[in-house]
Amino acid sequence: MSGYVRGLALAAREAQVAIASSDAQTRRGLIEGMAAHLLAGQQAILAANREDLAKATANGANKGTLDRLALDPQRVQGMADALREVAAQTDPLGAVTRSETRPNGMVVERQRIPLGLIAMIYEARPNVTAEAAALCLKAGNAVLLRGGSEAAATNAAIALCLHAALRDAGLPAAAVSLVTDIAREHVLDLLQLSDLIDLAIPRGGESLIRFVAEHARVPVIKHYKGVCHLYVDRAADLDKALGLLVDGKATRPGVCNALETLLVHRDIAPLFLPRALAALRAHSVEVRGDEATRTVDASVTPASDNDYAAEFLDLVLAVRVVDDLPQALAHIARFGSDHTEVIVTEDAGAAEAFVRGTRSSAVMVNASSRFNDGGQLGLGAEIGISTTRLHAYGPMGVEALTIERFVVRGAGQVRHPIPS
Amino acid sequence: MSGYVRGLALAAREAQVAIASSDAQTRRGLIEGMAAHLLAGQQAILAANREDLAKATANGANKGTLDRLALDPQRVQGMADALREVAAQTDPLGAVTRSETRPNGMVVERQRIPLGLIAMIYEARPNVTAEAAALCLKAGNAVLLRGGSEAAATNAAIALCLHAALRDAGLPAAAVSLVTDIAREHVLDLLQLSDLIDLAIPRGGESLIRFVAEHARVPVIKHYKGVCHLYVDRAADLDKALGLLVDGKATRPGVCNALETLLVHRDIAPLFLPRALAALRAHSVEVRGDEATRTVDASVTPASDNDYAAEFLDLVLAVRVVDDLPQALAHIARFGSDHTEVIVTEDAGAAEAFVRGTRSSAVMVNASSRFNDGGQLGLGAEIGISTTRLHAYGPMGVEALTIERFVVRGAGQVRHPIPS
Repeated sequence: MSGYVRGLALAAREAQVAIASSDAQTRRGLIEGMAAHLLAGQQAILAANREDLAKATANGANKGTLDRLALDPQRVQGMADALREVAAQTDPLGAVTRSETRPNGMVVERQRIPLGLIAMIYEARPNVTAEAAALCLKAGNAVLLRGGSEAAATNAAIALCLHAALRDAGLPAAAVSLVTDIAREHVLDLLQLSDLIDLAIPRGGESLIRFVAEHARVPVIKHYKGVCHLYVDRAADLDKALGLLVDGKATRPGVCNALETLLVHRDIAPLFLPRALAALRAHSVEVRGDEATRTVDASVTPASDNDYAAEFLDLVLAVRVVDDLPQALAHIARFGSDHTEVIVTEDAGAAEAFVRGTRSSAVMVNASSRFNDGGQLGLGAEIGISTTRLHAYGPMGVEALTIERFVVRGAGQVRHPIPS
Repeated sequence: MSGYVRGLALAAREAQVAIASSDAQTRRGLIEGMAAHLLAGQQAILAANREDLAKATANGANKGTLDRLALDPQRVQGMADALREVAAQTDPLGAVTRSETRPNGMVVERQRIPLGLIAMIYEARPNVTAEAAALCLKAGNAVLLRGGSEAAATNAAIALCLHAALRDAGLPAAAVSLVTDIAREHVLDLLQLSDLIDLAIPRGGESLIRFVAEHARVPVIKHYKGVCHLYVDRAADLDKALGLLVDGKATRPGVCNALETLLVHRDIAPLFLPRALAALRAHSVEVRGDEATRTVDASVTPASDNDYAAEFLDLVLAVRVVDDLPQALAHIARFGSDHTEVIVTEDAGAAEAFVRGTRSSAVMVNASSRFNDGGQLGLGAEIGISTTRLHAYGPMGVEALTIERFVVRGAGQVRHPIPS
């Protein structure tokens, strides 16, 4: 192992002590300062971004990558706004979340402390650089940022702004440490640093996440694909169902909380499917369906198991008619990715059976899958959406970057009093 | 990989669905039934335990192992009592821990669900078999139990009782699955089952835990050693300090929340150390001290850095005189294991500085390190004490075996309304 990443991690870990012991007002000011420096440094950031875009174009990057990579003044403003929202949140540190007096008079408190050093390993989106740093710092952590090679210049320009704000606040710049040498071997090194890194969060395509999960010796919270289902129950309001279908599939198909599969109760399929297929066609969505779907529209491509397991991230939708709610649940258990499931129903019993029968990070009753997002669910911002059923499940905000520990306040209590 | 462990895990995972969907009363009755079956099956359990003890003695097991392994009617009663305590706890499942209405009218709830399938990998103590099973089931999980080879017959006899109770409750016995073929290779296989096992909890000696951490592809919550410190501040009440020292070191030196190092403020050392050394001598505790300690008693063995890093698990204590509280904190940061730290002081400012300056799973102000225990801190029972700053930190009870997910209740809300 080269010492490069270990050196960065050691410095970040040392810097974390200063972040953790800074007061709430300092951390709030720090993150507001980061937003201000991003806006002040916008010209340099956009210039670096043009450089990255030119390289990526020359390397034949696809449209999706270029779109995720590209910044403009509006997107920089968006980053600054997100940071200000993080800054404004209630400070999580030191909060006593519970307190109980034991029979022997000891007071047992739970208190939030930072996780420590967090490693973000992500792909093209440069806004992650600023937002992950802000969320980690707000919760008293230091962060190692290893972004994608495509965004190297942009990320470096953003990091300069973040470091300026850290210096303004009298805090060590090493608390936000960008891995600027993005050789793959350094990611491997980083994933071995179990004595220094408390948590690794991979964000990006499935292959990146599998690579991290495969090689990590540090704890990992995964943000896998979203194979999200919309189940239209027998007792569905069909107008709501249609609205949720179009919102979930057609408005932003490239994100993880977009719909990938529509399940329709057999009793309502004759009423709903013709309307659904027409709406999908109107939004240029390609449908892959089972036999029952194809009896409604013979031009629908037959769906395979691969289609039901797929995260299309595109204007493609798999459709299946199910006999009843248990069959819908069985389909989700088999093909789902624990991300987001939606039921459309006016039947409270069916809604509860659906909620109980799924164990995904978010279950929606008559609401769009697209709401599985930290901002939309009230967390202010998110560092990602966990599909790991440990520590955090669903969108991870500031609080998910802390942990509760025990603080006990006594007056000399012992467990086994010894006669003196 | 052999299919043996995978087969067990698949069956357990299937059985978990039935546990998770059982109601609170059924799970409570199940665990009370487990307690009853343990008492009813006591003769068989004790006979199996005599067999294990005879083998272990023949294999030259040490006194500590034999003590952890040995059962008697009182210890079986203790197991049953622990199970009844778990049964009586508030059911954690389905509880809505927070609820917020968003500006668009959606209600966003957080709701506790089980983790899924938990693998316990542990050493000699047979009571873990019953208690881990009860805690996992109470939280709606299934559990794979891989105990130590020394306790194989005892664990099998206990598992028979647990299975009888599962059958009585109309629940699948596979929800508690004992890995009866204890070949090491099966542990390796088990640690690879990332598609089936949601969490592995190793409990036992440091080498076992390192082995698990080293080989796991599944998430692990570690329960490492406890290098617990008692810091006697300049403003300490010396009687309290003496009581906490003896309780922490001498009453049960073989457990993880026992004290391993005493740090004494230089200003109070001349008053406290002579009394402390006398009390330790009276309890047959061997002291290893720094120069300042040896000026009080020249017969004290000099302490090395190895002594300060050691979890003696024996009647041995390392002692150091420190210049001030920051030096005590620096010592703990260098040699501690994030388990339990104690400050003895009547100075509220010093207490707060100590709490803020340590990040261990439990920090005690004027209370014994021996209270870092699920039962003592009000959790009812514990599956272990986490020193991993993720998911759970400190004693893990029933609640730590669940996770919060999002449930959203709407009326057809979409994220991007489209004009129809």
